[in-house]
Amino acid sequence: MEKDFTSIDHKKLKEFTALALAKVGIKKQDAEIAAKLIVSADLRGIDTHGVAHLGPFYITRIQKGFINLNPDIRVLSYLPGTAVVDGDNGFGFLVGHKAMTEAIERAKKCGIGAVAVRNSTHFGAASVYSSLAVEEGMIGIALSSTGALVFPPGAAKRGMGTNPISIGVPAGEEAGFMLDMATSVVPGGKIGDALRRGLSIPLGWAVDGQGNPTTDPKAVFQGGGGLTPLGSSPEMGSYKGFGLGVAVEILCSILSGAVASLLMQEAPGAAGNKCDHFMAAIKIDSFIPLDQFKSKMDDLARAYHSLPVAEGKGPVVLAGEKENGIVKERLAKGVPIHSKVLESLEQLNSSLGIGYRFS
Amino acid sequence: MEKDFTSIDHKKLKEFTALALAKVGIKKQDAEIAAKLIVSADLRGIDTHGVAHLGPFYITRIQKGFINLNPDIRVLSYLPGTAVVDGDNGFGFLVGHKAMTEAIERAKKCGIGAVAVRNSTHFGAASVYSSLAVEEGMIGIALSSTGALVFPPGAAKRGMGTNPISIGVPAGEEAGFMLDMATSVVPGGKIGDALRRGLSIPLGWAVDGQGNPTTDPKAVFQGGGGLTPLGSSPEMGSYKGFGLGVAVEILCSILSGAVASLLMQEAPGAAGNKCDHFMAAIKIDSFIPLDQFKSKMDDLARAYHSLPVAEGKGPVVLAGEKENGIVKERLAKGVPIHSKVLESLEQLNSSLGIGYRFS
Repeated sequence: MEKDFTSIDHKKLKEFTALALAKVGIKKQDAEIAAKLIVSADLRGIDTHGVAHLGPFYITRIQKGFINLNPDIRVLSYLPGTAVVDGDNGFGFLVGHKAMTEAIERAKKCGIGAVAVRNSTHFGAASVYSSLAVEEGMIGIALSSTGALVFPPGAAKRGMGTNPISIGVPAGEEAGFMLDMATSVVPGGKIGDALRRGLSIPLGWAVDGQGNPTTDPKAVFQGGGGLTPLGSSPEMGSYKGFGLGVAVEILCSILSGAVASLLMQEAPGAAGNKCDHFMAAIKIDSFIPLDQFKSKMDDLARAYHSLPVAEGKGPVVLAGEKENGIVKERLAKGVPIHSKVLESLEQLNSSLGIGYRFS
Repeated sequence: MEKDFTSIDHKKLKEFTALALAKVGIKKQDAEIAAKLIVSADLRGIDTHGVAHLGPFYITRIQKGFINLNPDIRVLSYLPGTAVVDGDNGFGFLVGHKAMTEAIERAKKCGIGAVAVRNSTHFGAASVYSSLAVEEGMIGIALSSTGALVFPPGAAKRGMGTNPISIGVPAGEEAGFMLDMATSVVPGGKIGDALRRGLSIPLGWAVDGQGNPTTDPKAVFQGGGGLTPLGSSPEMGSYKGFGLGVAVEILCSILSGAVASLLMQEAPGAAGNKCDHFMAAIKIDSFIPLDQFKSKMDDLARAYHSLPVAEGKGPVVLAGEKENGIVKERLAKGVPIHSKVLESLEQLNSSLGIGYRFS
């Protein structure tokens, strides 16, 4: 355990998160669902989307009235494999959970289920939802459009969200596959980190307000700049990252009947709140027997692990294998919580009058 | 028209291609389907996957016996939205066409249809198949795994195909969206081009046999090197391009019950022949009314076109818009065929005894 970190049992984090969400008006049962999803990000090592966001991000937005606490979440469906979920501006975790649950139910009947989601809010890490399908022995796909932060190649203005793609796949004895990636080179948090630490950023991650590559994180957030799509430059294929991000935008925001991030207006102070999603679940044994699939996934992972590597490099691993190791460690030893995050949790504990004891 | 190019009507190209395929043993009706798909790549400006490949690639493989001319293409389905298609080593264009047709039929019933395809062969450009869904007012997704040519980040050996992703989306008055991208920074053809012309390649496109970045195209094909995944370096997110490529591998080769490219053995001289695919079709009006969707797609395209651009840059365009312009031009003025390609077509014309007159 590094200094500045305290290890806290994940069950305690979940319990506290549920209590805090209930205090600000989320129904008890819903608060428990959201708490499980938030802490599952911490368990996977996605610390930026877990309890570190609880006070400054999720609860602040609820308190500012950006989230509908009593949403009428509607499922509109015309054919058995698909649906639109209208989140009625509800808490993104609950809207996302409802949408993936619907996709899974539809996949049980049709072999594949797909749900486009409008009027939702920030739902945390996309892999939290694809994991729900993986737990059912399915392939899970979770996409989200987000507020515009990425400059299309050649543009001098933000035109796309970081629009994450998560694809999760179960395996047998191996960890399976869990991709969870922004379609930009890096997520916005990496620029924010550099800004706080006074560091420069690698050329290729971001552009300034004129669309020129920059190493200065201030030019990105304070100078009207933005992130670059995966590929980083046109010569290295940034039009591909842009294309993937637009595809996410279409599946989330256009197919659900919402508005693409480029055209979306957000309330002052609420940037990054409104989101649309797309969830799909694929029932593996409607293609081939599940045990055969899992065994082939194990073979694939092992073949990658035994590829020869470049000098000084570790073995090739599949997306999600590192995070799977973190889950095991954190389930056993607790989640390392930074002193600043612990401080923010204690502040919530006191300001909301929860009276929770972490130790 | 540049010198060295002759303009040929697309109908003539289709007619000749169908005659040539029929001469080497493809049934007449199937030859016409395949010819339409091959020439549709030429119409879109994807010259590398059209008639330029007919002689040296598609017909040569048929003549060498790498393609089953009388395949028993089977559709194995347990639930109404999904199926496995076993291509029985048939001609990839026909297997791919059958698979997307099945996906579209399933989407009509369930809202979404998905088909994983094993035992297929090279099927040309992925966008040819997603276009089939777009013609039906659907979103089309076409993926293919291919022979290993890409080095995973850190690896010192090829471990993945260039595994293309195509996503096609219809619009109203605008051109719509058509992504068709390798999950590597560039497709193998770009390295081959540089090799033929004696040029170096940009650092980041490829690695040598030890997994080190190289500017020498010889190191890639003759020195046991390979391509880099989209992202080009770990710092710029090449693990994301690798993750996308593996996801394609899983959906095509594992879900269909085939073998991933890393584990696949090909007959000597047949490298790049065996492929697996994944096709999905999404029925838009099972989500929202099609005219509303198309109008939102038009709004999105126009919003991108009117984004301010960096100095010296043209307007931002969506994936596929440029190709849509090429289609219009080539439908009207014919397809420009390079003298070397025309020579290869005339050679087929004579060696197969077709007796076709291009002009």
